[in-house]
Amino acid sequence: MKRTLQGPRIITLATDFGWADAYVGSMKGVILSVAPSAVLVDITHDIPPHHVLYGAFVLREACPRYPLHTIHVAVVDPGVGGTRRPILLRLDTHLYVGPDNGLFSLLLRDFRMMGAWELNNPEYFLTALSSTFHGRDLFAPVAGHLATGVPPDAMGSAITDPVILPFPDPGVGPDQLSGEVLLIDRFGNCISNITHSAFHDWARGRPFEIRMRDISLERLVPSYDSVDAGEFLALFNGLGYLEIARNQARTDQGLKVQVGEKIVVYARKSYS
Amino acid sequence: MKRTLQGPRIITLATDFGWADAYVGSMKGVILSVAPSAVLVDITHDIPPHHVLYGAFVLREACPRYPLHTIHVAVVDPGVGGTRRPILLRLDTHLYVGPDNGLFSLLLRDFRMMGAWELNNPEYFLTALSSTFHGRDLFAPVAGHLATGVPPDAMGSAITDPVILPFPDPGVGPDQLSGEVLLIDRFGNCISNITHSAFHDWARGRPFEIRMRDISLERLVPSYDSVDAGEFLALFNGLGYLEIARNQARTDQGLKVQVGEKIVVYARKSYS
Amino acid sequence: MKRTLQGPRIITLATDFGWADAYVGSMKGVILSVAPSAVLVDITHDIPPHHVLYGAFVLREACPRYPLHTIHVAVVDPGVGGTRRPILLRLDTHLYVGPDNGLFSLLLRDFRMMGAWELNNPEYFLTALSSTFHGRDLFAPVAGHLATGVPPDAMGSAITDPVILPFPDPGVGPDQLSGEVLLIDRFGNCISNITHSAFHDWARGRPFEIRMRDISLERLVPSYDSVDAGEFLALFNGLGYLEIARNQARTDQGLKVQVGEKIVVYARKSYS
Repeated sequence: MKRTLQGPRIITLATDFGWADAYVGSMKGVILSVAPSAVLVDITHDIPPHHVLYGAFVLREACPRYPLHTIHVAVVDPGVGGTRRPILLRLDTHLYVGPDNGLFSLLLRDFRMMGAWELNNPEYFLTALSSTFHGRDLFAPVAGHLATGVPPDAMGSAITDPVILPFPDPGVGPDQLSGEVLLIDRFGNCISNITHSAFHDWARGRPFEIRMRDISLERLVPSYDSVDAGEFLALFNGLGYLEIARNQARTDQGLKVQVGEKIVVYARKSYS
Repeated sequence: MKRTLQGPRIITLATDFGWADAYVGSMKGVILSVAPSAVLVDITHDIPPHHVLYGAFVLREACPRYPLHTIHVAVVDPGVGGTRRPILLRLDTHLYVGPDNGLFSLLLRDFRMMGAWELNNPEYFLTALSSTFHGRDLFAPVAGHLATGVPPDAMGSAITDPVILPFPDPGVGPDQLSGEVLLIDRFGNCISNITHSAFHDWARGRPFEIRMRDISLERLVPSYDSVDAGEFLALFNGLGYLEIARNQARTDQGLKVQVGEKIVVYARKSYS
Repeated sequence: MKRTLQGPRIITLATDFGWADAYVGSMKGVILSVAPSAVLVDITHDIPPHHVLYGAFVLREACPRYPLHTIHVAVVDPGVGGTRRPILLRLDTHLYVGPDNGLFSLLLRDFRMMGAWELNNPEYFLTALSSTFHGRDLFAPVAGHLATGVPPDAMGSAITDPVILPFPDPGVGPDQLSGEVLLIDRFGNCISNITHSAFHDWARGRPFEIRMRDISLERLVPSYDSVDAGEFLALFNGLGYLEIARNQARTDQGLKVQVGEKIVVYARKSYS
């Protein structure tokens, strides 16, 4: 009795393969050949190539929003064919399939790990396993077999040490909080590693000044629309990270800001 | 008895979120968590950022082609978190969910409005409604609940005045018809605001000359293929708008034409 | 008795329409209006515009990986509205719908043709067939009707001569094998027309040197990871074509290589 769940399984895909080539379409074909009734959902295929941290952030934000028992296939895999392990994780009720290179770091930080396996049973791989395209030859068929009800234990050996990337925490000093730009999104918003809770633990209601390059911001706003078009602003976004943004304009272009740019919050003396 | 329709509901998505970030994947997860059997269809996520008119055009062209009772979620939302209303429209049998900023203007122009609501019942929003991402926190769960059969009346208050953008009509003079480039598509085709009917009402069979920059075209052709490769041409496209195009080449690059470029049709004296 | 298959049919889409405009969304709407329970799968919409050979390569790689009886709609169609025929092919159990311009060349080379038809029965087209958008008006409804079980014979006349593009074979000399870059993928990998079998038939175990511009490579490696980051390498990729690549870097940018660049393999004298 292999099936344990009712109804078709949702399988999401998140990769850095881009949409132009055959990579995405090939993966989907392999999954559907194994599990014809699986429901495929594209999360993204435009993670910047080889940018594992970017992928980790996207997965952390998107994947937990899916229904119970969703299967997530994620491939940002600069080390394909090398020594990095292919893995399967169960975090809460969700299953995650992909390379063990830190791509699941933020999910592992925030969700309970109910199981982890190295995928080393070739019975569930394509017969001709290439060393350059595990997305198609290994992760896709494994996801398909999971969708048909094959239990994780059949697919590999239990492990306890999936790779967790050193995610840069903000530096906390008495009078300043130092962070950096982790990501610049489609709209040019600069997303930092400063979380809502880190900020408030540090600020404790004190007045503050947020600086990035020449921008100085002394308040947080609730939405982009809170300032005039073209003005800079600071807010905590939907996932709880500090963003420097501009209303209806790109933050990064005028300032030539790139990923890694410093963002520092200073305690501001209040002359009251 | 909440369900009123047989079978899974189709929910289309059209946004300016791009494919790189977690925005699209998060919305889909929220919808499927509410309505696990909904069928999601990506129309586009590459509407140019904040370009409401571009979105209006895409929606007008694509959405009405879907089956009866399709639910369309559309988000091009530069005013998110501000005062613009979140709305739900019923146009013929289709439901449209998105910001009340004119995004549905062309649909409202061409289809019968059977109902309109301001979405103001937070029971159908995510519990933690952010002010920056209504796509995920408001429009997605509303669409999911619609798919499970919740009636629109439960979700908000009836309204009668959804925003309609001033869509630039061509200027009609006795001897000329003045339009402009509304959109430049993937292939570099320049799509104008001159409709087939506006053109013929004005031309009444007279000979004409279409001018954009230095291009002069004195006839309409049925297809791109009607002229030699690289040659300019004018045709009415599948939606009935005048296009200036080049066979197998981009119109915009050689001419450095941008959105807003003037296109003028002159009555031509016939020396017969 | 029109239906011959159990369950919903998978329909894949591969086009050069890009994701920004309404083209993709319109096609999907038309298909679903004809066949509401069809399962749509996006292979790609980012084939470089009008690049039929690129499309042929993508289709050859991705489509055969889908389940039996999958319907594939492919549109890279610079000659739309002209004299090229719209066709339907049955290759093994799969059905292919698209323009007869060579887009299916590589599939026709490698799979058994069980049937071919010119799509000339307008009963299965949209009533208003445009001359500029057969993807929406002709190929989409035909795919939908196929999914509902309409047999190919009802849709057109049998043909025997679908167009096959001259696919550039490598040039074989006694001491050299001359190929070229067919495609440069998302990662900057340069994919040539030199197949695994052509290479080995020519090399017969002799030592060799692969040259492209100033790069000289004297061995094949199993994976990108086989060399240090930034180093060039040569491997046969998952589809069996010789690739010149760099580990975690783009091959094309430093070298300014473009499609068509020569790749030559020389027999190397061994001084043993």
